[in-house]
Amino acid sequence: MVMSPLVNTYPLSSYTVGTKEPKMEKDTSVADRLARMRVNYMKEGTRTSVEAILLVQEHNHPHILLQQIGNTFYKLPGGRLKPGENEIEGLKRKLTSKLGANSPALIGECVAIWWRPNFETLMYPYCPPHITKPKEFKKLFLVHLSEKEYFAVPKNLKLLAVPLFELYDNVQRYGPVISTIRHQLSRFQFNMITTFL
Amino acid sequence: MVMSPLVNTYPLSSYTVGTKEPKMEKDTSVADRLARMRVNYMKEGTRTSVEAILLVQEHNHPHILLQQIGNTFYKLPGGRLKPGENEIEGLKRKLTSKLGANSPALIGECVAIWWRPNFETLMYPYCPPHITKPKEFKKLFLVHLSEKEYFAVPKNLKLLAVPLFELYDNVQRYGPVISTIRHQLSRFQFNMITTFL
Repeated sequence: MVMSPLVNTYPLSSYTVGTKEPKMEKDTSVADRLARMRVNYMKEGTRTSVEAILLVQEHNHPHILLQQIGNTFYKLPGGRLKPGENEIEGLKRKLTSKLGANSPALIGECVAIWWRPNFETLMYPYCPPHITKPKEFKKLFLVHLSEKEYFAVPKNLKLLAVPLFELYDNVQRYGPVISTIRHQLSRFQFNMITTFL
Repeated sequence: MVMSPLVNTYPLSSYTVGTKEPKMEKDTSVADRLARMRVNYMKEGTRTSVEAILLVQEHNHPHILLQQIGNTFYKLPGGRLKPGENEIEGLKRKLTSKLGANSPALIGECVAIWWRPNFETLMYPYCPPHITKPKEFKKLFLVHLSEKEYFAVPKNLKLLAVPLFELYDNVQRYGPVISTIRHQLSRFQFNMITTFL
């Protein structure tokens, strides 16, 4: 038997969630966002983003932590690296700013990479042929949470724990990146840890 | 920078493909197949299948080797393990019977696991909640081909090299397992090796 890599998941209740000052989105529309991306690309070249897959358990099923802006848009905690910034350090910085996660999070496996070929919302899990200058690539890392953690979430972002099976085949709600996380994680085995406080 | 695991891909032309006696499917219909699965489940319990992701390159793009039965149905080389059989040994046995691959293939990473909750064609990249006795689980392994290889393919099976980007979002043609292989492989980097013979 080939053993699956193990991921410890702790109960949602073992994490405490507070709030902090809002961290507003830099753009008010998708068009603005793509325009800013174009300006940054001219200055800094291909943009690298890093995002975290943070797992907890509830009712013995793995759940993923997502941040919601307004009532529609779901995001993984993470964001854009500074030019030349190390991916692991950059992701830790983002986890602090977006989640207030202070404990040194253990950044684990890179489970997926997505490419943005043009200044458009469409992303692919590969760089399409004939695209020599992708505009962004986004790396998803599995982040191993410790048994206890205090999160301070910007007031304008809701923090949700969504059951992993809810993502599957739900591209309408979660988009292509988040809706296929369940596929990316199929090779992992989840160790549901029940703690008695 | 976190380095992506590397996969060497050699030109399709460096592999020679011959034929051997047909290896007929045991079932003539999907209904027959599911009925046989039910009988085997009663005898042997949850079935384990192993399948191989074999990559080559053409025009500098990674291609996957698929086997086609008739004009419609695509399969990854592989099959069902014998009860208690080791996964790696079983996959090697299947690669010999289905592909005539004799060189000791290097079985690499498990990239995906799929579960069949019922005696139905539907599979999921997780065991759905409340399913305590899945009927099958299927593991996909990345198999690293050597620089040269001779394949002897059963006469009733066509061997195809399909560009990986062709699989993406093509669930209609390839089904949920094969159409998401491109997602599973996004974290790998392909080293396209051009050999001059």
